[in-house]
Amino acid sequence: MSDSIVNRIQRRRGDLFAEACPSRSVLEHVTSRWGSLVLILLRDGTKRFSEIRREIGGVSEKMLAQTLQALEGDGFLTRKVYPTVPPRVEYTLTPLGHDVSEHVLVLALWVEKNLGEVMKRRESHAASRKN
Amino acid sequence: MSDSIVNRIQRRRGDLFAEACPSRSVLEHVTSRWGSLVLILLRDGTKRFSEIRREIGGVSEKMLAQTLQALEGDGFLTRKVYPTVPPRVEYTLTPLGHDVSEHVLVLALWVEKNLGEVMKRRESHAASRKN
Repeated sequence: MSDSIVNRIQRRRGDLFAEACPSRSVLEHVTSRWGSLVLILLRDGTKRFSEIRREIGGVSEKMLAQTLQALEGDGFLTRKVYPTVPPRVEYTLTPLGHDVSEHVLVLALWVEKNLGEVMKRRESHAASRKN
Repeated sequence: MSDSIVNRIQRRRGDLFAEACPSRSVLEHVTSRWGSLVLILLRDGTKRFSEIRREIGGVSEKMLAQTLQALEGDGFLTRKVYPTVPPRVEYTLTPLGHDVSEHVLVLALWVEKNLGEVMKRRESHAASRKN
């Protein structure tokens, strides 16, 4: 069987240190302010747009829609529209999305747990710059 | 001993889902395009500014300086200036930075390893939207 260029590229690992590598956009989608929270939230199960928006403090409708679209495009979640009035739109993690969300969660939990420590460093750093 | 407000806040866990929680800025510093790569790179040991810049494809001097400043302010790395001409500036992970960098690395390796899978999903998603 012939090996298309696309197939060959698809087998290659990404390289985040290379300027043109698309892995950078993938990392950005899963770690963006809203992307990371969406991935963590959907680990609980399927949720509607309105539920997601309610649970993530401060996200605008537009930013949430863009975030969900990026994660859907990368295959991390599926979007299902039910023909009700108004239409019900639901989002569910794919197995790939569930997989990456685990690593995002571990990092997020580390940040939440160590926030006090970081805030102390911020304060002493700010104080040292005043002297 | 009295328990200052600062101490009480510092003992509290962060909550990434809360709009005003500073944990969001910490997560952003460690997962930003350049922040994540700096943390991973410095796991190899102390590096100079110019070395870091050379190893991270596409980063500008200004963006790298901002990134390093944010990570230093959060206590994830230390900056040491040697009074040579021109001054030599070196960056080293703190134990806290080493700790968080491990989780960033696991996530980054997942993204690099699964890039082919994501690119396939991107293509089929783009194709399905054309129909």
